[in-house]
Amino acid sequence: MRFLVAAACAAALPAHAQDLTAQSLATEAAAVRDKALSDPTAWRVVESLTSEVGARPVGTPAMARARDWGVATLAALGFENVHVESFTTRAWIRGEESAEVVGPWPQRLQILGLGNSAPTPKGGLTAEIVLFRTYQAMLDQPPGALKGKIAVVTQATPRTQDASSYGLIGVQRTQGPLEAAKRGAVGYLVRSISTADTRLPHTGSTAAPGIPAAALATPDAEQLERLAARGKPVTVRLDMSSSVIAAAPAWNVVGEIRGRERPEEVIVVGGHLDSWDPGTGAIDDGAGIAITTAAARIAGQAQRPRRTLRVVMWGSEEQGGSGDEYAKAHADEIARIVVAGESDLGAGRIWRAALPAGSLDHPAMSVFAATVSPLGVLMLREPPKYGGSDIAATIKAGAPFVQFSQDADRYFDLHHSADDTLDKIKPDELAQNVAVWASFLYLTANSDIDFRAAKP
Amino acid sequence: MRFLVAAACAAALPAHAQDLTAQSLATEAAAVRDKALSDPTAWRVVESLTSEVGARPVGTPAMARARDWGVATLAALGFENVHVESFTTRAWIRGEESAEVVGPWPQRLQILGLGNSAPTPKGGLTAEIVLFRTYQAMLDQPPGALKGKIAVVTQATPRTQDASSYGLIGVQRTQGPLEAAKRGAVGYLVRSISTADTRLPHTGSTAAPGIPAAALATPDAEQLERLAARGKPVTVRLDMSSSVIAAAPAWNVVGEIRGRERPEEVIVVGGHLDSWDPGTGAIDDGAGIAITTAAARIAGQAQRPRRTLRVVMWGSEEQGGSGDEYAKAHADEIARIVVAGESDLGAGRIWRAALPAGSLDHPAMSVFAATVSPLGVLMLREPPKYGGSDIAATIKAGAPFVQFSQDADRYFDLHHSADDTLDKIKPDELAQNVAVWASFLYLTANSDIDFRAAKP
Repeated sequence: MRFLVAAACAAALPAHAQDLTAQSLATEAAAVRDKALSDPTAWRVVESLTSEVGARPVGTPAMARARDWGVATLAALGFENVHVESFTTRAWIRGEESAEVVGPWPQRLQILGLGNSAPTPKGGLTAEIVLFRTYQAMLDQPPGALKGKIAVVTQATPRTQDASSYGLIGVQRTQGPLEAAKRGAVGYLVRSISTADTRLPHTGSTAAPGIPAAALATPDAEQLERLAARGKPVTVRLDMSSSVIAAAPAWNVVGEIRGRERPEEVIVVGGHLDSWDPGTGAIDDGAGIAITTAAARIAGQAQRPRRTLRVVMWGSEEQGGSGDEYAKAHADEIARIVVAGESDLGAGRIWRAALPAGSLDHPAMSVFAATVSPLGVLMLREPPKYGGSDIAATIKAGAPFVQFSQDADRYFDLHHSADDTLDKIKPDELAQNVAVWASFLYLTANSDIDFRAAKP
Repeated sequence: MRFLVAAACAAALPAHAQDLTAQSLATEAAAVRDKALSDPTAWRVVESLTSEVGARPVGTPAMARARDWGVATLAALGFENVHVESFTTRAWIRGEESAEVVGPWPQRLQILGLGNSAPTPKGGLTAEIVLFRTYQAMLDQPPGALKGKIAVVTQATPRTQDASSYGLIGVQRTQGPLEAAKRGAVGYLVRSISTADTRLPHTGSTAAPGIPAAALATPDAEQLERLAARGKPVTVRLDMSSSVIAAAPAWNVVGEIRGRERPEEVIVVGGHLDSWDPGTGAIDDGAGIAITTAAARIAGQAQRPRRTLRVVMWGSEEQGGSGDEYAKAHADEIARIVVAGESDLGAGRIWRAALPAGSLDHPAMSVFAATVSPLGVLMLREPPKYGGSDIAATIKAGAPFVQFSQDADRYFDLHHSADDTLDKIKPDELAQNVAVWASFLYLTANSDIDFRAAKP
């Protein structure tokens, strides 16, 4: 409704005053954008997090250090109401892992257990493999067909700019182990959901399958294809240990820049603070933490915004929980959330932005489109389809959301692997992200746009 | 001397006959080249070696399997006089290895021990690091300056086409541990001699330093730079085990295509059969084995050559020994070695060829230059500077040699790391190598060129 009122007000102003307001908004947004392009905050934040904390899986001491780091960082950057929202969640913790071809051509394999994987019996598990070059070929097997075998699925992940292959192929990681177990398999190996050709496997969560399940480095998946093609039975030994904490302590870390006119209206943005264990969580998702923290700071720096800007560092994205807990804790606030957004696809340039339907008709958002156009951002006419896993529950509860699509071309080379390190972030690309978010936050926090009102 | 005689003979022929001979050589060499470009032998050889044997460090059971593979492969391809030349050599065998920053920012580091490294005491070695961004900065330290410390050298390896950075920077791996120990260090970490940005360290031999010495993955070296720059003492724990076999059995595997006219004149080419342990030895040096084996076969296939083509699979290049042993075993044959060559810089395209001084004046070699020109090969006017470590002793004893320079642009992304796997070889580049070698072997084996005679 606010949108309609705003439009009515604007209509009531003389044309000259309207032009002046739009002109002034555009000038201010451009200044915010240009400041963001040269501001060092985001780089410093992600450099600090990845250097001083490093890997920070939920349930580990490193995640407690990350929480303290988050509080200290937000406070040092001048955020207000900095606090921690505690909850508990299930945490799967990796132990020692190894795999090898026992015969007929003995050699080591590079694996990384999937989150929620069962451990092997002590001393390992040795079984013949059955290799499927597509996931569907495994699904086509009847119950019992994989009895006593280690199922191997080697379908490759195509490189895509919009990350769409992750959803399509990811199912062989998330559901594959369960489907293999249903068919009698005693173990499951999947080609990493990865576009890289390195020997570093990519982990990720799977539905608790009851059997040991691990990701193969992509060259190792291809090696098993070659061995299987030789027509002799290939035997593999898996040795994997892990532990589970049923109710691990976890934390969403929050900081705000309180609004000067309508502080109860909140713009919620953030990234996730936890990471998988092999890398240092730079692109997943130190970058998202850095981008949204820096953007909010820059958007609120020249003068206090009219609405409240809130940054959330969600504390258990990889193994789930932080988004649901956030929505639960903020259930009575949903109606006052102006918009929610999460940055969680690395640090590649934003190439496309999707706003709630009709938003572009509001002057603030047409200024946004013009402000980020020189950064190479296309405005989608369709509303966003996906906001981020930590805001999914908040969106479901009724909050409007935006989706700023990052170029995912290189993301799955690195994601969930040891290669997720700071050196993979390009400072200019990181700054472009900050500029887009800062422009959006500035315009949203200093206008009266109501994203709920603008249904088509 | 043979060269002069040949030239005299050629001069004695009528001009018409000379043209015919050169024309016929050129036609035959072009046919050999073109056959090589589409011949599947090299790919099959390297696919088989890397799949069925995999990593094959000297002193391990895998190297014995590699020996058997070599004999079987040469026999299956129709080589004659296939045999094994045994010797013993010192072998360093990797055990378990790990490293971590203990404080103030605890995190794991990706390392790989250097060949000949001492093990740490059981339970590991914990010490403060002293980090040098250049190797020279460490050399500038006086004796005792590093007492009780772990020295860290993080100088980066620039990417070069001609592999020249390896020689310039490699010294921080080969000599660095010894120099650090001289200055009192109890451990040594060096940025991998690598152009990659992955978390996979690159191993390689070092002069037995008496202290534990390991390579850091390049992102980990940069991480230590960031931590050291924070100004607080950084403590690292190294835990490394290894063992040494003083006289490990080793083998050079040999096969020939015997010459039909002058079988005692031998052209010696090959690659090395052993590899480092983390990868499957595809570019280092399965490719060299495959290229030279396939080239000799193709060069000798249409009809038996006039001189003997010999392929040697040297059996202990990485830790040294096979070249010296070969020269020793063949000391009385040196004068009959027409030319020696080794392929040991991966599978990148050959972009430059160097022949013994004056060779290009011989008709066979001017045909060679013309034959490989369409493959993008430039002929150097200078004689070769380096032939390969397995032929160094043979060269020193007096054998002429050639150097066909492969494009090393990507070689040090992979070399001595887990990423040295088959998928990194591009079949068209491999075939280009075979075509160059096959053309050279054909022309040399079917002419009377004397590379010794052609001193400028």
